[in-house]
Amino acid sequence: MSRRLRLGMVGGGRGAFIGGVHRIAARIDGQWDLVAGALSSDPQRAAQSAVDLGIDPARSYADFTDMARAEAARPDGVDAVAIVTPNHMHVAPAIAFLQAGIHVICDKPLAASMDEARQLETVAAGSGKLFVLTHNYTGYPLVRQAREMVARGDLGTIRSVHVEYAQDWLAEPAGADNKQADWRTDPARAGGGAIGDIGTHALNLACYVTGEAPTHLAAELSSFVPGRRVDDDAQVMLRYASGARGTLWASQVAVGNENALRLRVYGDKGGLEWAQESPNEMRFSRFGETRRIMTRGGAGATPAGSRNLRVPAGHPEGYLEAFATIYAEAAALIRAHDAGAPAPEGAHVPGIADGMLGMRFIAACLNSAARDAGWVEI
Amino acid sequence: MSRRLRLGMVGGGRGAFIGGVHRIAARIDGQWDLVAGALSSDPQRAAQSAVDLGIDPARSYADFTDMARAEAARPDGVDAVAIVTPNHMHVAPAIAFLQAGIHVICDKPLAASMDEARQLETVAAGSGKLFVLTHNYTGYPLVRQAREMVARGDLGTIRSVHVEYAQDWLAEPAGADNKQADWRTDPARAGGGAIGDIGTHALNLACYVTGEAPTHLAAELSSFVPGRRVDDDAQVMLRYASGARGTLWASQVAVGNENALRLRVYGDKGGLEWAQESPNEMRFSRFGETRRIMTRGGAGATPAGSRNLRVPAGHPEGYLEAFATIYAEAAALIRAHDAGAPAPEGAHVPGIADGMLGMRFIAACLNSAARDAGWVEI
Amino acid sequence: MSRRLRLGMVGGGRGAFIGGVHRIAARIDGQWDLVAGALSSDPQRAAQSAVDLGIDPARSYADFTDMARAEAARPDGVDAVAIVTPNHMHVAPAIAFLQAGIHVICDKPLAASMDEARQLETVAAGSGKLFVLTHNYTGYPLVRQAREMVARGDLGTIRSVHVEYAQDWLAEPAGADNKQADWRTDPARAGGGAIGDIGTHALNLACYVTGEAPTHLAAELSSFVPGRRVDDDAQVMLRYASGARGTLWASQVAVGNENALRLRVYGDKGGLEWAQESPNEMRFSRFGETRRIMTRGGAGATPAGSRNLRVPAGHPEGYLEAFATIYAEAAALIRAHDAGAPAPEGAHVPGIADGMLGMRFIAACLNSAARDAGWVEI
Amino acid sequence: MSRRLRLGMVGGGRGAFIGGVHRIAARIDGQWDLVAGALSSDPQRAAQSAVDLGIDPARSYADFTDMARAEAARPDGVDAVAIVTPNHMHVAPAIAFLQAGIHVICDKPLAASMDEARQLETVAAGSGKLFVLTHNYTGYPLVRQAREMVARGDLGTIRSVHVEYAQDWLAEPAGADNKQADWRTDPARAGGGAIGDIGTHALNLACYVTGEAPTHLAAELSSFVPGRRVDDDAQVMLRYASGARGTLWASQVAVGNENALRLRVYGDKGGLEWAQESPNEMRFSRFGETRRIMTRGGAGATPAGSRNLRVPAGHPEGYLEAFATIYAEAAALIRAHDAGAPAPEGAHVPGIADGMLGMRFIAACLNSAARDAGWVEI
Repeated sequence: MSRRLRLGMVGGGRGAFIGGVHRIAARIDGQWDLVAGALSSDPQRAAQSAVDLGIDPARSYADFTDMARAEAARPDGVDAVAIVTPNHMHVAPAIAFLQAGIHVICDKPLAASMDEARQLETVAAGSGKLFVLTHNYTGYPLVRQAREMVARGDLGTIRSVHVEYAQDWLAEPAGADNKQADWRTDPARAGGGAIGDIGTHALNLACYVTGEAPTHLAAELSSFVPGRRVDDDAQVMLRYASGARGTLWASQVAVGNENALRLRVYGDKGGLEWAQESPNEMRFSRFGETRRIMTRGGAGATPAGSRNLRVPAGHPEGYLEAFATIYAEAAALIRAHDAGAPAPEGAHVPGIADGMLGMRFIAACLNSAARDAGWVEI
Repeated sequence: MSRRLRLGMVGGGRGAFIGGVHRIAARIDGQWDLVAGALSSDPQRAAQSAVDLGIDPARSYADFTDMARAEAARPDGVDAVAIVTPNHMHVAPAIAFLQAGIHVICDKPLAASMDEARQLETVAAGSGKLFVLTHNYTGYPLVRQAREMVARGDLGTIRSVHVEYAQDWLAEPAGADNKQADWRTDPARAGGGAIGDIGTHALNLACYVTGEAPTHLAAELSSFVPGRRVDDDAQVMLRYASGARGTLWASQVAVGNENALRLRVYGDKGGLEWAQESPNEMRFSRFGETRRIMTRGGAGATPAGSRNLRVPAGHPEGYLEAFATIYAEAAALIRAHDAGAPAPEGAHVPGIADGMLGMRFIAACLNSAARDAGWVEI
Repeated sequence: MSRRLRLGMVGGGRGAFIGGVHRIAARIDGQWDLVAGALSSDPQRAAQSAVDLGIDPARSYADFTDMARAEAARPDGVDAVAIVTPNHMHVAPAIAFLQAGIHVICDKPLAASMDEARQLETVAAGSGKLFVLTHNYTGYPLVRQAREMVARGDLGTIRSVHVEYAQDWLAEPAGADNKQADWRTDPARAGGGAIGDIGTHALNLACYVTGEAPTHLAAELSSFVPGRRVDDDAQVMLRYASGARGTLWASQVAVGNENALRLRVYGDKGGLEWAQESPNEMRFSRFGETRRIMTRGGAGATPAGSRNLRVPAGHPEGYLEAFATIYAEAAALIRAHDAGAPAPEGAHVPGIADGMLGMRFIAACLNSAARDAGWVEI
Repeated sequence: MSRRLRLGMVGGGRGAFIGGVHRIAARIDGQWDLVAGALSSDPQRAAQSAVDLGIDPARSYADFTDMARAEAARPDGVDAVAIVTPNHMHVAPAIAFLQAGIHVICDKPLAASMDEARQLETVAAGSGKLFVLTHNYTGYPLVRQAREMVARGDLGTIRSVHVEYAQDWLAEPAGADNKQADWRTDPARAGGGAIGDIGTHALNLACYVTGEAPTHLAAELSSFVPGRRVDDDAQVMLRYASGARGTLWASQVAVGNENALRLRVYGDKGGLEWAQESPNEMRFSRFGETRRIMTRGGAGATPAGSRNLRVPAGHPEGYLEAFATIYAEAAALIRAHDAGAPAPEGAHVPGIADGMLGMRFIAACLNSAARDAGWVEI
């Protein structure tokens, strides 16, 4: 195969959330190696985080500007950099790396203000480099299939689009100790509350699937939690260029919802509904016909819906993570075993005894079946 | 961090299914590097597959015996080997590597016959090495939580256990071109049909969660598809040592089911239900109380249910795979871009335009809100 | 028991829909006898319909004014009248009967215009008689329970209310032969399209459950079907007196939806979700706790949620209708049998053979159990 | 219309459960009038119950034998009798009425012993009268549709049938005050526990839908609750005449289940799944095609599935009961009003105010729409 690509990272040091997600995502398909980083604005945390991640200390930078310059100069410099800093810290490093001739993979939203977003847009346009925004929900196979189905006319002319993203983790005033809540509820650093943090995801999903361009909106923003300085609930009515109408609801105070991202699209020929909480199924209906439940990679899968499958049709999302846990636990046990240390508490892997039970089960089944399904000992 | 562990693989060459799954699983948490392999019994395919996977040709072996010997002799030899061959080819390599002093991670079932399984059991017991059987379904966070809840008495004394694994991919005679179906329906190589392929998974799940040991069974095996030489449907009644009763149903001809693995456990205090098709939710009921829906890592998560989370509570399984798709597509586009080649057909990543739309959306929302939710242009 | 009440009906003759629903509803609890009617504005159809319904011809009226006068004069006159005419024909008969001193049970919406609605309001206020509007969705046990839970503070202070009623039966231009669609899409007779026909139900449900009073709204009405003269889709943003915010979506062109009436209410302490398509379950969450699924009359049922149960907890809605079908089929067969006529095609009731099979099943189970679950003939 | 049929009832007096269900079921379609009864073996309770139900005291009998004789002698005697006594009291009255020339509608199971069941079978065969057994679950429209779909070959040759009926109301020892549990757990009166009470329903459903005849079974019966004298959990393996295989699980101790009656049928062409807890939907899959969700009376409805609808397609089961509650509450309020008594506590009906709000809502929507969806007061 061609060599793995070299990835650098800005942000994502100890205590961060989304950086770890980017790293796992980059590993899954074996296309990337994380080799450099400016992992924190705090030099010591940056260095420690690099050690945690097995990054050569020589390629751990205290400053993203130095990193862009240095990596651009190395023959084995990073092919791309992942920017996983808080919203208000996206633009500066993105510009630095694009100008250094390095591809950029940036977390969303693009920026904390319209002005700096425009600067970035200009730089990106002139850089000749790729700029990737991680609107990750567009990566679900059924979301890609939905887009293709709309594009080829399965729904006919789109009439209405309803998208919502409901959470409840900010339903109460966040403690000062909640790093995530902290910057997300600071207007200066977040550049918007629920609308910026999850509303942009919802809009992106709606536009990605329908191919529609919104032209006007009317938004009712609320800050329900006393003392909250950004919106924690947003109701939006949307008008699209095609004449389609729609709604968008984003809330971080809808008690009982975790990450309820849900899309419903209706056209004059059909309608479809998909929800992240059950990502392996999509409801599709043609007018006058019975509802269909399309499954990830299952019957009726389109090319786009089949492009990014890692396991055959029918194996649900999550299957790989469960499998990975066996490997992670095995690693933990092997490390302990080889070090003569006791097994880590809570670590578990199935072993020979489980295998023997399975074998006895098979033998007993065959034995019982041979005896007209009579009782046999296992 | 401590060094990554070195992984070898037996089987899993071009055209194989489960080998690729093992490789992804090994990559997700960044604990392993695949550095050696005897990837196929066909020497040429073995070599080509090694190239595909970026394995040093010097460590690509045509024979697992040579591999075991050679890797055991290297200072940088593999820490463990993953055996992903068809069922009847598990035991020989497992024994070879254990005897060579190398940890083994083996796909299930353990073997194709009871006799060779016993040999392996003996060797494993004396080897002082770890033997891990990849009963991967025990890796789901909610499955681990279920086990802990039963163990601590949340359900009281277990009365009945109902487990089932229903598929339909073998509902019709499999074509000769179906490599998977081919060996799975050959008694000699599979050592059992539905009972061996998925029934053992179902039993393992039931025993893992309940901690119960089955003592007797009565099994009704059927081969519904004309010409099928192994069972494609199995109904089993089980008796457990504790006095609990249960059923197990495994079918590969239940039309409309993909990988419907489902467990239901009832005790004198409570009951729980979990299904792989919706792995992020588990229904738990205490007698006389309202049903509860426990979510992966959500409220009420136990230590075991929280041990292997890769993202915070509420992010569903599949989130990481969707995210990985963005990275995979970015890699594909970057490779093409840097090679001056056209973008691969179907490749898609969100970009600057999506980001600008998001920014305009936020600005428009704030603008509209400031005007009493009046209409504004986006 | 006290005597059954005497019911009259205006509208609901042959070919009508909602009249039949009112009649079944009036029969279920055995509180009413239908004894009089002005069932159609067409005298002949009115008379024929009366015969269909077993109404004494002397009490079948061609005109609701005559009916009101005559029934008021009879010692055994109707206690109440059910008005089930198209929307624009509600007010005149309602006023006539109220002024005649007869209680009124009227279908919704109240009227086809605000002016006549106000007249009715005045008359009703001065009549000293009961005026009942059949917003039937408030009759679901879990809806009544939801209202009580909100009232007693289970959700805390209400923040947002999302209600929707989605159908698709008007997704295409309705044929002239569709009597229902005909008047419902005529502005003069319907007084509004989706907003009047189903939007009012949705609003009523939201207000009934939350006890909130809406003060302002912003509505985006669409007529997506070419040639449609009333709205067939409505997006509404609502502001409530308490400061709560909400949305209402009513559509008759959302392909794939039949009668998808759904309510979601979120407060600072909890949230609840109910959908008519699954009326026996209500999702209730307290912040920070696991989701609960409350069932109709089940654990946690409140007094209001238990007040109108006809069968014990756990028997789903629909159970009674299925049971009624057995009685209806029995009647059909008995009528045929006693008339020496052949059984009506398609009629089916379980009989003695089914009962004998059940008995043999029980005996066989006991027999098998007595033989260690061995096989026995049934 | 032809006259209503006259119904008599044996059993079903004060404190009974199923009798009330039969009465509601008989009322729903307006085909029956309850005019006579031997409602209890306790003469006083029989008389009081008759008064409760508005039965002419002259036709309230202390003994079912007298009732059969007297009703048979009356020119206006009952057309049929409903027998709703405990299981061990079905046969004697059934025989008495059949011999008196009166049709019988009997609750299930047929009898408490095989011997008396055979007597009844003989009498019924010679009586020339109809004997109807109320296996009410066969009355669900989708159950009738399922039967028709299997019969016409939509599923191909049936391979396996899985039916289950899970409850939890007997999960703990029943108090002596529980009249229902009392006789149901007495072997003499019940003639079997879970298998007789709900297992027979499950078997009937499986046979009704598939048209299959079971020939052999192997049953594992358990009495999990200490001191229970009948089975409270039954696992059964079944063999059908056609070669199909199946399982049946009936439990009254499966914590978290209320009336979970569920059927799954798989053939070589397709499979279908239906559960009483969601009676308006049925999952149907053809091999290799996307799953379909068929709805009660919706697209794809068969003649049998459309025969017994009381409301148009899409109105869920339960809609009529919710509607009936409005009528029941109206009756309660009217009775109080006309008696000058205070309204019964908890009684609620929507009224003029709700109607006015609806009208203001419609007007406001039209007004807002006319002003480009601007905010307007309601």
